[in-house]
Amino acid sequence: MNKTSEPTLMRREIDEIPDAVARLLQDATPAIGQAAAAAAAIDPAFLVTVARGSSDHVCTYLKYASELMLGLPVASVGPSVASIYGARLQLKKTVCLTVSQSGQSPDIVEMTRAAMRDGAHAVAITNDPASPLASTAHRTLDIHAGPERSVAATKTFVTSAVAGLALLAEWKDDDGVRAALRELPEKLREAAQIHWPELRASIGQRPSLFTTGRGPAWAISGEAALKFKETCQLHAESYSSAEILHGPISIVDNGFPVLALAAGDAAEQSLAEVADKITAMGAQVFVTSDLCRDAQSLAHVRTGHALTDPLALIVSFYSMVERLARDRGINPDLPRHLRKVTETV
Amino acid sequence: MNKTSEPTLMRREIDEIPDAVARLLQDATPAIGQAAAAAAAIDPAFLVTVARGSSDHVCTYLKYASELMLGLPVASVGPSVASIYGARLQLKKTVCLTVSQSGQSPDIVEMTRAAMRDGAHAVAITNDPASPLASTAHRTLDIHAGPERSVAATKTFVTSAVAGLALLAEWKDDDGVRAALRELPEKLREAAQIHWPELRASIGQRPSLFTTGRGPAWAISGEAALKFKETCQLHAESYSSAEILHGPISIVDNGFPVLALAAGDAAEQSLAEVADKITAMGAQVFVTSDLCRDAQSLAHVRTGHALTDPLALIVSFYSMVERLARDRGINPDLPRHLRKVTETV
Repeated sequence: MNKTSEPTLMRREIDEIPDAVARLLQDATPAIGQAAAAAAAIDPAFLVTVARGSSDHVCTYLKYASELMLGLPVASVGPSVASIYGARLQLKKTVCLTVSQSGQSPDIVEMTRAAMRDGAHAVAITNDPASPLASTAHRTLDIHAGPERSVAATKTFVTSAVAGLALLAEWKDDDGVRAALRELPEKLREAAQIHWPELRASIGQRPSLFTTGRGPAWAISGEAALKFKETCQLHAESYSSAEILHGPISIVDNGFPVLALAAGDAAEQSLAEVADKITAMGAQVFVTSDLCRDAQSLAHVRTGHALTDPLALIVSFYSMVERLARDRGINPDLPRHLRKVTETV
Repeated sequence: MNKTSEPTLMRREIDEIPDAVARLLQDATPAIGQAAAAAAAIDPAFLVTVARGSSDHVCTYLKYASELMLGLPVASVGPSVASIYGARLQLKKTVCLTVSQSGQSPDIVEMTRAAMRDGAHAVAITNDPASPLASTAHRTLDIHAGPERSVAATKTFVTSAVAGLALLAEWKDDDGVRAALRELPEKLREAAQIHWPELRASIGQRPSLFTTGRGPAWAISGEAALKFKETCQLHAESYSSAEILHGPISIVDNGFPVLALAAGDAAEQSLAEVADKITAMGAQVFVTSDLCRDAQSLAHVRTGHALTDPLALIVSFYSMVERLARDRGINPDLPRHLRKVTETV
């Protein structure tokens, strides 16, 4: 690939994230407010989420947001429960959040339909309000991201997460999150300028690494690991910083790279301690925090709220990983074996 | 390590699995029946699970069992929700299943205590009825596994899963699962004799691989991936066969090993098709099914019920991975960087 050529689609869409988030917050506010009022009226015992791939990392992020903000537990339901096993679930007085950029995958649509049959109120978060998913769900939050042509989702990941967080903020009537969301486009513009050259140099041609985080940032760590695989052909795997010192640590040898994604939240100190411990085992650990003694600190943007910090982290990550792919001689717009829409039954 | 020396602790404990399961089914039946009656009386809206590491794979397995048998959704709660973030959850009319071999980890105990404070009826599944976890929970299912000295859990994984499945079977009054459990010790004895030499030869000194499965067998695939890392220093990662063709497939190059763990259930055909697709991309795919055209079939024991099949698979897997570690010159009883009890806050 010619490094002096035009920016990749992936890079262009990363640069579109701040405006896409601003547009979403402007255009989707009425729909989000109505969905929040409907959800609050149901007063569900719990939430269920349905998604795959990057969208499922959005759901993990929203699970933490729901549990920490609303105290409402979230169960992720595997689409196979409906599409393969044909099971019925007890879903009376629940809200089902389905996240899918394309709104196309048959098993995602079928699981959503089954959840509705079993009693759930279904809210779709999608980039296509004319998709089969949107036609199926009780209501749809259009993420207004505009066309996403890069195979690796970036702006639809962030806008889906913002749509879900805004829904929870309206539901909870949470002024702190609302204020952080208003500031978010500018913060994401700063975050998109960060690209962690020291991390890229450390990874070099290594084949394997770990990403880690805790709480909402752990969801983001999962998204980062998937993108490392998808765009860089790097075997990255995400573990909670509470899990990584169990079995996973066995594969860490000298120089093994670890990316610790810390938000400015109650988990930061504990994550920093784990990062230092892994450094002491010989790994090269990079962390988006200034609280480490031994692990290397990476540049990061804080957003004024613990729940929006992870979104700035993933934008800096995207910015880094798009460059890393090119460093490794890979065109991130053409991931091996992949197409944009994957349909699963 | 001397290959002619005594069996490893890990191997000895794998060989103890059938007797441990038989003992559990005999000794724990009254406690399991009482816990099932208590759970049925609560008639919960959903279940929550609390666990880490191998025990969390038990919970994923039980999540599918609960959703498929009882239609009862299961939310896995990250211990950080209590121990780090101090959040309160809406858990009235729920049952909390906590799984921990040692019953020691402070964050697991604290999350269980917080779930009880927030309204959940807590059932601990543990190998130590005198542990802090057992002292905390409303009731305890002792898995009767006897001492586990190997760092890599094997017999406590299987006995914890059996205890949980037996609980759900009594709750549902499911004669099919009860019958399969009665036959299980003999089936596991057969399964322990299988060790997949062709898979071991294919992995050789490769650094990375995928494990895959669908539904309950996907939970087992997660446990397999962890054990590959822990005992063989191999970067194995587990993906649902519905996810693996999304981003993860990008790291699959010629000869990349993939282990597909298929149970004899409604997902087997679809898993076999995915295994064939990945084979066509150049991977070396091994599958515990006879339904593939191109992927290589591995010996497997069927147990007479779709929900117990995955337990026979993991016993054959353990048998294989203990040998693979030794093939690679690693003593599986001494995993790098690890101790038996990992305490996390």
